[in-house]
Amino acid sequence: MRICVVGCGAVGSLFAAHLAQLDEVEAWAYDPDQAHVDAINEGGLRISGVSDLHARVRATADADRIPACDYGVVATKSMHTDAAIAATARAFAGAAVCSVQNGIGNEEALAAHCPRVIRGTTFPAGHVVEPGHVEQDTGGRTWIGPFEPKPASMDEVRALADLLTRGGTETLAMEDARGAQWTKLIFNAATNPIGALTGLPHGVACDQPPVRELITGLVDEGKAVATALGVELDSDPDELVDHAREVAYDHKASMLQDVLAERATEIDFLNGGIARFGEQAGVPTPLNRAVWALVKGLEHRTRGAAPPGNPPRQANEEVAKR
Amino acid sequence: MRICVVGCGAVGSLFAAHLAQLDEVEAWAYDPDQAHVDAINEGGLRISGVSDLHARVRATADADRIPACDYGVVATKSMHTDAAIAATARAFAGAAVCSVQNGIGNEEALAAHCPRVIRGTTFPAGHVVEPGHVEQDTGGRTWIGPFEPKPASMDEVRALADLLTRGGTETLAMEDARGAQWTKLIFNAATNPIGALTGLPHGVACDQPPVRELITGLVDEGKAVATALGVELDSDPDELVDHAREVAYDHKASMLQDVLAERATEIDFLNGGIARFGEQAGVPTPLNRAVWALVKGLEHRTRGAAPPGNPPRQANEEVAKR
Repeated sequence: MRICVVGCGAVGSLFAAHLAQLDEVEAWAYDPDQAHVDAINEGGLRISGVSDLHARVRATADADRIPACDYGVVATKSMHTDAAIAATARAFAGAAVCSVQNGIGNEEALAAHCPRVIRGTTFPAGHVVEPGHVEQDTGGRTWIGPFEPKPASMDEVRALADLLTRGGTETLAMEDARGAQWTKLIFNAATNPIGALTGLPHGVACDQPPVRELITGLVDEGKAVATALGVELDSDPDELVDHAREVAYDHKASMLQDVLAERATEIDFLNGGIARFGEQAGVPTPLNRAVWALVKGLEHRTRGAAPPGNPPRQANEEVAKR
Repeated sequence: MRICVVGCGAVGSLFAAHLAQLDEVEAWAYDPDQAHVDAINEGGLRISGVSDLHARVRATADADRIPACDYGVVATKSMHTDAAIAATARAFAGAAVCSVQNGIGNEEALAAHCPRVIRGTTFPAGHVVEPGHVEQDTGGRTWIGPFEPKPASMDEVRALADLLTRGGTETLAMEDARGAQWTKLIFNAATNPIGALTGLPHGVACDQPPVRELITGLVDEGKAVATALGVELDSDPDELVDHAREVAYDHKASMLQDVLAERATEIDFLNGGIARFGEQAGVPTPLNRAVWALVKGLEHRTRGAAPPGNPPRQANEEVAKR
C-alpha cells in the first residue's frame, strides 16, 4: 500500500508520520522545501508534542519521482492545491486522493485532476520546528467521506480511515463528511480573519462585545449557506468559538500569523468560499464578503499582489451539478 | 467680538488664524499642548501651504483663563469633544458654539453644555509642522447651520459665516447643514476604516475590486440612514470616493495614521455614528457595524484600551426628539 502526502508541512507531516507507523504502508511525502525533504530522507521525520514519533518516510521535492500510489493525502495550504495536484496527478491516476485541508473548494481542485476524490476535515495541528521535525500542538479527529461529484468508493474511504486510525490518528469514515467540513469552515471563517484584521489573540477578540457580535454574524451567514446546501452541521460553530476561548485564549489565528509573516492567506477558501457558495445558493453573505475584501486588501499591502478579482469560481460548477 | 477655538490642532489652527485676520475679532485658542500654546503666544500662529498667514492669537492650556466669548469653534478630535467642552463651557455661557469636527454626534455633546449650538462641516485640512506652525494641505468650503435640538439663531450663524469668509475661509450659512455633514460623514466612514484595516492608501484600496465594492456597500448603508432621517445629501459620497482617488491616490487615511501612531480613532463618530443613527431610524447597517467592530478591536490591540461596549448612545436621545 503506497500513500503519498502532498504538502508535507505541519499537518502533512502528522499524516505521513502516522501512516508510516504501519508495516503495510510505504509512506511518501512531496514538498517543495528541499531542506525539509533532505532532512526527512537522511534522519527520518520526527514528531514531538502531542504525538512522539520517528518515522521512515520517502520524501521528494520532484513530483516526477513519486511512484504510482494507492492513495494521496493533500495537505498544502488551500491556495497551493491546484498547482500541487497538477504537478503530482500522474502518481494518482489509479488512486483515491483525500484533502485534509482548511476551507472549502480544495476537493473541487483535486477533482479536476484525479479520478476519485475524498472530502476531509482534520483537527490536529502543529508547526515545523526545523527541517525534518514537526511539533504537534493539538490532537483531535479527522472526518473523511466521498467527494460527491467525483467520489471514491466508501470501501476506499473506510480503508483509508482504518489505516489512519491504526497509525494513531483517529479518523471517521462517513457517507457525508460535509457536516464536519462546514462546521470547521464556518468556525475558521468567523475567527481567522478577525485575528488577521485586528491583530488580537482569539480570547481577547472574543472579549470585545462588538467583535464577538461580528463573529456571530459571520457564523450565522455560514450556517444559512450550509442549510441552503442541505449540509447538516456537526456542532454549532458559535459554541466552538466560546470553547476555543476557554482552551486557546492566547492563540493567534493562523491567518494572523500569515499576515504578520507577509504570507498569502487562505481567505479565498474560507470567507471567500462561503461567499461563493452563498451566491450559488442564493444566500446573502455581506459580512463574509466584507471581511474577505478587507483581508484581500491587507494581503495586497503585505504582499503587493496583483489586484484580486472576485472569489475564485472554479468550485461553483461542480457544486451546481449536485 | 471674542471667539475661542477649542482644540487648536491642524483644523483648529486654520480657523483661529483666519479669524484673527479681522480687526474686529479677538481670537483665542484653547489647547492642552503647552508647547504649542507657548509658541503661539510668543511668536504668533503661522500657517503655510494652501494659506500663508501669521496670526496674533491668544492661546491657553488653562480653560479657566478663557474670557467670556461670543462664539466657540470646536475642532478637537471627536472623542475629546465631551471633555473639552465640559472644561470650557463657562466661557460660552452667552455664546453660540460651532462644531467643525469630523463625524456625527459632536453637536449633541456640545448641546449638553452650551446654550446655542451650530452644526458644521469643514473640508480644509492640514498637519502640525511644529509648535506654533501648521501646514494647510487642502482647501475647501465650510458649511454651518443651526443645530436643530438646541439651535443658534440664523442671524448668529450668518454672522459667523461672514466672519470666517471675510477672514479668508469660505463658509456657507445654511438653514439645514445636515446634508453637507452627512455627505462628508458617509465619505469618511466608507474610506477611513478601509485604510485603517488594510493599511492601503486610498487610491490603491479603490483599485482592489472587492474593496471598492465594500466601500460602495458602506456608502449605500449611510445613504439609507440619511434618507430615513430626512437628510438630503449635498452630493453622492460614492462619487467623492472616485474623485478622491483621482486627486489623492497616495493619501493615507487619517484613521490609518491614527492606528499607525497607536492613537485612538474617531470610529465611534463615523461608522459607529451611522450604526447608532441607523438603529434609531430602523435602518440596518451591518457593514458599518462590522468595520466599526473591527476598528474597535484594532484600537484595543494598539492602545490596550478597556473593552468597548456598544456605540456611544448619548447622541440618540436628542435626535429622537426631532
